[in-house]
Amino acid sequence: MNSFIFCNPTRIYFGEGAIKNLAKEMEKCGKNVLLAYGKGTIKKEGIYDGIVDILKSCGKNVIEFSGVMPNPTAAKVREGIALCRDGKIAFILAVGGGSVIDCCKAVAVGSRLDGDFWEELYTKRIAAHEAIPLGTVLTMTGTGSEMNSTAVITNEELKFKASFSSEAAAPKFSILDPTYTYSLPKYQMVSGICDIMSHLMEQYFSGTDDNVSDDLNEALMRSIVKNARTAVKNPKDYAARSNIMWGATVALNGILGCGKTQDWEVHQIEHQIAVYYDVAHGMGLAAITPSYLRFICRNGLDKLKRFAVNVWNVDAEGKTDEQTALEGIDRLEAFFKEIGATVSLRELGINDKSKFSEIAESCNIRTGGYRILTPEDIKKILNDSF
Amino acid sequence: MNSFIFCNPTRIYFGEGAIKNLAKEMEKCGKNVLLAYGKGTIKKEGIYDGIVDILKSCGKNVIEFSGVMPNPTAAKVREGIALCRDGKIAFILAVGGGSVIDCCKAVAVGSRLDGDFWEELYTKRIAAHEAIPLGTVLTMTGTGSEMNSTAVITNEELKFKASFSSEAAAPKFSILDPTYTYSLPKYQMVSGICDIMSHLMEQYFSGTDDNVSDDLNEALMRSIVKNARTAVKNPKDYAARSNIMWGATVALNGILGCGKTQDWEVHQIEHQIAVYYDVAHGMGLAAITPSYLRFICRNGLDKLKRFAVNVWNVDAEGKTDEQTALEGIDRLEAFFKEIGATVSLRELGINDKSKFSEIAESCNIRTGGYRILTPEDIKKILNDSF
Repeated sequence: MNSFIFCNPTRIYFGEGAIKNLAKEMEKCGKNVLLAYGKGTIKKEGIYDGIVDILKSCGKNVIEFSGVMPNPTAAKVREGIALCRDGKIAFILAVGGGSVIDCCKAVAVGSRLDGDFWEELYTKRIAAHEAIPLGTVLTMTGTGSEMNSTAVITNEELKFKASFSSEAAAPKFSILDPTYTYSLPKYQMVSGICDIMSHLMEQYFSGTDDNVSDDLNEALMRSIVKNARTAVKNPKDYAARSNIMWGATVALNGILGCGKTQDWEVHQIEHQIAVYYDVAHGMGLAAITPSYLRFICRNGLDKLKRFAVNVWNVDAEGKTDEQTALEGIDRLEAFFKEIGATVSLRELGINDKSKFSEIAESCNIRTGGYRILTPEDIKKILNDSF
Repeated sequence: MNSFIFCNPTRIYFGEGAIKNLAKEMEKCGKNVLLAYGKGTIKKEGIYDGIVDILKSCGKNVIEFSGVMPNPTAAKVREGIALCRDGKIAFILAVGGGSVIDCCKAVAVGSRLDGDFWEELYTKRIAAHEAIPLGTVLTMTGTGSEMNSTAVITNEELKFKASFSSEAAAPKFSILDPTYTYSLPKYQMVSGICDIMSHLMEQYFSGTDDNVSDDLNEALMRSIVKNARTAVKNPKDYAARSNIMWGATVALNGILGCGKTQDWEVHQIEHQIAVYYDVAHGMGLAAITPSYLRFICRNGLDKLKRFAVNVWNVDAEGKTDEQTALEGIDRLEAFFKEIGATVSLRELGINDKSKFSEIAESCNIRTGGYRILTPEDIKKILNDSF
């Protein structure tokens, strides 16, 4: 096990009706609250009205920051920073999924910087220690952003999607009500599930030592698979949606990365696909993960065999390690198909390979789990995923 | 999954040499530091000298609080509180295992109360919100106290061992160096392993719904079993000791209790055994757990069957559920024996049954996982464990 530092102070309020905890959290913060959300889905379901009522009853002055898009852009972050500065914002409440939360993390930290947030956080990569306090109400599950300190932002001009981490950006609290996810379209639910699986695999597929974090990781992968199968059949199965929602949080709150080297190459490739094409993050991950794993199979053979046996219950009897490993990857791909994920770039709406070279060149991969990919490698994976 | 609130802000520094992080933590606190430890084992191994050097180089005024015993007493807590008040202590550094840490939690909170700590925290059960900040350097693994807000203290006069929890009591940081546990006598290492297993089982054996926390719990139980087998053969196996050390922390940092009802009856019984007899906590748990599980087997049959299959790999084919469940309990008991735990009260040095009625009556059990035990039930379990 590698040495590590772990600290995650986000307070979680979990369960049906957990929104009732918002009022006591609002007592701790100042008057001017930035209420951030996406394209207004929360207005259809009464979530918006309920939150605004609580904020008003707590005497808050609410400034709206709406229209945060999937794969949030640097321009949108700058818009939020301007609102915070003009409105002397004391607290940011992000209502939505990972895109809204990530955007708000960059706004929260960026508002306290003298220079431009992208330049400071993503180019110079300074260590930021201050932020406007942030809380979240989660309405889409998958990213884990509700309980970590990382934010992924797309710079449209530079054609680059990148992440920064700062403990100051971690939410002070997150409210997780599984019933808030019931009305999510199936496509988005499935995309979230693929994202969770990818987060788990990105932490798992690295290293050779026997690590308790990997034991826990396998259990969570099996749990997500089991609960996803239930949830796609019955989206209002409270137990399944609860297990997926909390599982998604645990999958990326740092606990499963403790003592581990990690991979994250699939995420880096998907991020660049999303810069060039309008794709749902989780679906992009599902489309390239099987090809990626087949490509690195011989480099990470022991772990891929273990993955096949422990997560997918492949019987290794009478098979070579590679056959076992490949059967595990086949079962992962079959699971993605079964729950309705897109398992090829073509299915994602990418109709030709014209930008594959540019995407591959732009990935800027420097670290990885079992094999550090070159642009040529990435191009092969993109072709295999087509 | 039940609704829950989760927050655990303790910062963990894990790995060989992690003590190097002490200096930067000491920069954050005031001048007068209470250095708490047990019976001086840390002096033999150079741990004491290393820590004192760091404290001195940070300009701290060190006041010693030594001789904290296993199953720390209310009298010892009062001694620590007096030292804190007299010495205007700004920070408490607990060096040791769960006994030293638990004692220091009670000292930390008790020092900020007007009344007597036992009266306020354990009798009136007030919600305490203030404490002298506490940090820990862990030298014995098992209790999980290094990353939670609970303290178990024995009141010798009342003949009662009880716990209180307060977020204010949670360590600000804990330093976990697996090599610090190398020189622990095997008896104490094994006692710690039994304690970890018990913490996992106390959270697991309750409820009927399908909960991701139980999936993770099973994985951690399997991991502890696997690594314990390695560690008893080779106490200096860094990977095994690391996995056990971090596994112990995860086992009781709250993450595996999320969304769960819990049991804790075995702990309540063992606490009262320890009031009447001088027994190592983990060994006491190992001595009564198999009898307890056999006693409640029909009440929690589904879960005990699942435990047998998922944790102990029992083949359920051709067996009744009860046969499968009982085979799981047998394997647990065999594991305890295999690693050198005491699996009967007689082996623990309890030579007659004269105090069993008094112990049973004193347990004061009001909640439980699958069956709330009466004093008669407890007496039967004690007899079965004899």
